[in-house]
Amino acid sequence: MEILLAPYSGFCFGVKRAIQIALEAANKPPVFTTGPLIHNPQMVQELEKKGIKVMENPDELHNSTVIIRSHGITKQENEILLRNGNTIIDATCPFVAKAHEYAQRLTQEHYPILILGDHTHPEVEALLSYCDGETIVISSPKELPEFQWQRLGVISQTTMDLASLREVINALIPCVKELRLFNTICTATSQRQEATVALAKKCDLMIVIGGHNSSNTRMLTKLSSEITPTLQIETAAELKPEVIMGKQRIGISAGASTPDYLIVQVFNRIKEITGDRTTVKSVEDIPVNKEES
Amino acid sequence: MEILLAPYSGFCFGVKRAIQIALEAANKPPVFTTGPLIHNPQMVQELEKKGIKVMENPDELHNSTVIIRSHGITKQENEILLRNGNTIIDATCPFVAKAHEYAQRLTQEHYPILILGDHTHPEVEALLSYCDGETIVISSPKELPEFQWQRLGVISQTTMDLASLREVINALIPCVKELRLFNTICTATSQRQEATVALAKKCDLMIVIGGHNSSNTRMLTKLSSEITPTLQIETAAELKPEVIMGKQRIGISAGASTPDYLIVQVFNRIKEITGDRTTVKSVEDIPVNKEES
Repeated sequence: MEILLAPYSGFCFGVKRAIQIALEAANKPPVFTTGPLIHNPQMVQELEKKGIKVMENPDELHNSTVIIRSHGITKQENEILLRNGNTIIDATCPFVAKAHEYAQRLTQEHYPILILGDHTHPEVEALLSYCDGETIVISSPKELPEFQWQRLGVISQTTMDLASLREVINALIPCVKELRLFNTICTATSQRQEATVALAKKCDLMIVIGGHNSSNTRMLTKLSSEITPTLQIETAAELKPEVIMGKQRIGISAGASTPDYLIVQVFNRIKEITGDRTTVKSVEDIPVNKEES
Repeated sequence: MEILLAPYSGFCFGVKRAIQIALEAANKPPVFTTGPLIHNPQMVQELEKKGIKVMENPDELHNSTVIIRSHGITKQENEILLRNGNTIIDATCPFVAKAHEYAQRLTQEHYPILILGDHTHPEVEALLSYCDGETIVISSPKELPEFQWQRLGVISQTTMDLASLREVINALIPCVKELRLFNTICTATSQRQEATVALAKKCDLMIVIGGHNSSNTRMLTKLSSEITPTLQIETAAELKPEVIMGKQRIGISAGASTPDYLIVQVFNRIKEITGDRTTVKSVEDIPVNKEES
């Protein structure tokens, strides 16, 4: 039985940056984050051990050091934090911040805005706060309303899949005179999605590691499960032997907010289940899938 | 044997308007047009009989009345005409003029521009004169260069097919951060294309009537010939009996610059070939295809 890891698995640039910013700030406690810093409960627990506490409600924070989560916060939450005398450390992913900038630009130029994303996700909630005019959020091409627009701005959640964005634009072309698309799907997202799909094509089981609340991880699971049986787990403890046994080739992929040590633990647990006592210590020791499609 | 006409066949709004403008101007000869007013040699001959002469080179015209053709002319040609003391009557199709406006806007805002269209067509030549910065013309999705753009404006020739525009945009989405599409394919074009395709699906021969130099007619021929045997002709004289005989259902479609009398002549000629002596006098008497797809 072979186990292969999808290239680009694990932390993306924005997540690495947010953790680094948080750890630097942790030297001067008390430090809070607005919502979980990243969508990985295990990593958030690790950060809590270092004194970084998660606060859900910005109203509760006064005169503290507050780290803005990688997904960003709304304009209104930011104002509350400042009004209450907090010191803000911004760990918003620069690609997410870029989307805010585009939303503001489209708003200033009076474009109605269509956002492709999950309206309950904090990234989209924050993005929405920068859209002051007519705004529509759809989570999939199926939700596209049958309108005609003179002009329309389109932005997507950074973790959307390219196929859905293409489908939306394809449907919009005959309905919009001027279509202004800011493709805000981040490179890290596309790379992880492509690598996961390529690996799924050659495996009889895919294991996607990442927070059940992580949008980009869930998208990897969705895309992979369209190709081969796929299981999403947060930790190795969720792995049941009966799922592993009898498989020829198992692929591992991990979301952009999944720390390396969780990937290593899953790899070693699969080995253990199959009776193989050799283990790896680092994610660099796991064989990586080299084929691109 | 049945003969059906595709809905929307013949003159579009822009062509009707250009002819009306030209005929009104013909009351005060000498009157010239810059290139053929529309891409239909037979209709242009009719206009010549009324004293409207075609001039290819704007340099030759001084102190005359000049009608700008439906496809528009370049900014430079317009300047020459004015410098030489001509009186300009603008019969540019308003949808084409709109595309010039979009090209100017994109140029002013420093977008590189991609034009989907035939770079040898007068409409595209005129459009290009309004693009002062980096500009690329491609006639089909296959010619799309493999670039990455920070921002890109896209405009199409008004007679392009929607499928090609969609294919181009689909390919561009991952290569462009900000894609600003002005969908300048005119409604008349889409309607004629859809009606022709719908009719072609139920016929064993399609006859598309229109100028061999007419871009929108050639596009109808292209789309129809992908479905069923298709013949493009300018006049009934081109119809050979052996092409008609033995057919079950013949479809007729006509470009946006084809006058009604040419459609009537083709219909009557088919009837004549098949030995049917009943003729129609007006295009309104020809049975129209009612199915949409």
